Amino acid sequence: MQISPDTLTAIREMLDTIPGPDESAAAAADNREPQLTKPPGALGRLEKIARWAATWQGRHPPTASNITVRIFAGNHGVTARGVSAFPAEVTHQMVGNFAAGGAAINQLCRTIGAHLDVIALDLDIPTGDFSAGPAMSDAETAEAFSSGMAAIDPAADLLCIGEMGIGNTTSAAALAMAIHGGDAVDWTGPGTGVSGDALKNKAKVVAEAVIIHTRDNPDGLALLARLGGRELAAMAGAILAARLNRVPVVLDGYVATAAAAALKAVREDVLDHCVAGHVSQEPGHRRLLDKLSLEPILDLGMRLGEGSGAALAAGVVRAAVQCHGGMATFAEAGVSDKDD
Amino acid sequence: MQISPDTLTAIREMLDTIPGPDESAAAAADNREPQLTKPPGALGRLEKIARWAATWQGRHPPTASNITVRIFAGNHGVTARGVSAFPAEVTHQMVGNFAAGGAAINQLCRTIGAHLDVIALDLDIPTGDFSAGPAMSDAETAEAFSSGMAAIDPAADLLCIGEMGIGNTTSAAALAMAIHGGDAVDWTGPGTGVSGDALKNKAKVVAEAVIIHTRDNPDGLALLARLGGRELAAMAGAILAARLNRVPVVLDGYVATAAAAALKAVREDVLDHCVAGHVSQEPGHRRLLDKLSLEPILDLGMRLGEGSGAALAAGVVRAAVQCHGGMATFAEAGVSDKDD
Repeated sequence: MQISPDTLTAIREMLDTIPGPDESAAAAADNREPQLTKPPGALGRLEKIARWAATWQGRHPPTASNITVRIFAGNHGVTARGVSAFPAEVTHQMVGNFAAGGAAINQLCRTIGAHLDVIALDLDIPTGDFSAGPAMSDAETAEAFSSGMAAIDPAADLLCIGEMGIGNTTSAAALAMAIHGGDAVDWTGPGTGVSGDALKNKAKVVAEAVIIHTRDNPDGLALLARLGGRELAAMAGAILAARLNRVPVVLDGYVATAAAAALKAVREDVLDHCVAGHVSQEPGHRRLLDKLSLEPILDLGMRLGEGSGAALAAGVVRAAVQCHGGMATFAEAGVSDKDD
Repeated sequence: MQISPDTLTAIREMLDTIPGPDESAAAAADNREPQLTKPPGALGRLEKIARWAATWQGRHPPTASNITVRIFAGNHGVTARGVSAFPAEVTHQMVGNFAAGGAAINQLCRTIGAHLDVIALDLDIPTGDFSAGPAMSDAETAEAFSSGMAAIDPAADLLCIGEMGIGNTTSAAALAMAIHGGDAVDWTGPGTGVSGDALKNKAKVVAEAVIIHTRDNPDGLALLARLGGRELAAMAGAILAARLNRVPVVLDGYVATAAAAALKAVREDVLDHCVAGHVSQEPGHRRLLDKLSLEPILDLGMRLGEGSGAALAAGVVRAAVQCHGGMATFAEAGVSDKDD
């Protein structure tokens, strides 16, 4: 899975090789589900999640004992345009907070017993200000993408991806607009908490950047280079590596979903092994999930990033998998079925 | 907390004695929340849940290490009217399944480390068919209510309540309609899976029973006796006992919420220590939650009962409490605040 650090072509080629669903595992889930001691369909979304986990793990019953969370951190030149309520050094400080166990994601990982790794990507070298030029070169993008691929645990049952990067909701908004069209104001939200004139300025930065960078009809990976950031490229890499290794993925919020959208713009079915952990309060997120036909598991008004919504949703995935695999059948429990 | 088994009066008197919110614990939560290393409000509903837990546990920080689940099981004479897709003996069989660890709730309790107790209430003596007369006498109601009160663990951090009782969504629909008005068809749903003519018949049974039992303007407890069941009375008792012992409660689905509604009909603020764990697929549930001004934590299309939605939501409560208590402050972590 090593890719050449100087080209996006190798990534495009890898996208041609991704495995499809394991229909045998899916069929085994479909066979077991109606035998479980509950009315058909009574576990709702949990039943669909268990089937999805089996399908993309490629085994039945699915498992959820090795849940992993990966946070990718990057810094953004576009912060020079005043798009964030927090200073750029917070990215580095929060990476320290993750390492010390003091962030929200550390607590969430504790509650579900998930293993957390944080990958800081050249924090001292912010990407270019994409309102003036491309955020990254192809080589920088491929290197970050490769870091994301290398960060996953191929033996994991589940991968939650998240990010930390002051300024990166501006990146997410620009990417989403470049891929899906529409107005900048609909894709641009408060992020860490900008409002009023600062929010209007943020939308203006997004609108102008999209015009500059979409003139030559670039594909999703080119847009990821021009409008993204290292943590977005790394998340895209992690999603692809997870697919290649049959690790289902739980997406986090707006920024993680924008990284996923860049992949899907290149290959339509590349996110079939992903679920949306939650819909964030950031207004563009719901719009983007709709465009990607992703239905969020949770809707709790969160807007923190750092994998928090994905990790919380991973608890639901684990519950779904545990129900599917652990419940007794009507025959085992001596319970009368509906048709008896 | 022992109550006389022959009267509902003692329950009405206890409702006059319930403690209010602990404003000191709430203030401590309000003081800590903005210091945590995240943008203000970024954990959304989790922040409100942590404050609620502190307020009703009466301490700060709140805790979530001792989560309890109580399932109350009862049988219903109204099943004689063909209101359920499953035979009545399933109630007893499922109690055996709970004891053997084979039900969905057992798996969910495992994933969050919750302690489960199942209280079977005179399963061999179904309540009366409430389409012909009252489901229970006042004495039977008070006895079941008392069983519910006795079932809680006063040392628990959290109580999830759920039920098992073939026929009890018919009870829930009748109670909800008797308390909140409206049409029987809007309160009556498929339950374990009735449809077509059987569903129409179920709504007709509900409509007729409500007419019979509401002529003399009965209060919530009287309605609980006439239209409820032992497990509904027990859940109401558990909710009250939890309040008296400062144990916050997570409600489950339609039947648990209908039991709660009967209490609220007697005293408006009696559910302030309760959250709605989820909104079920049973259509009357969302309507009832709206009437009670309860906002569900989860919306996953579940409709199983047996505390499943509450237990799944308890994982979210635990995460909220862990974030509030476990996160570093800006000062502790050396992270720049928005205002720095």
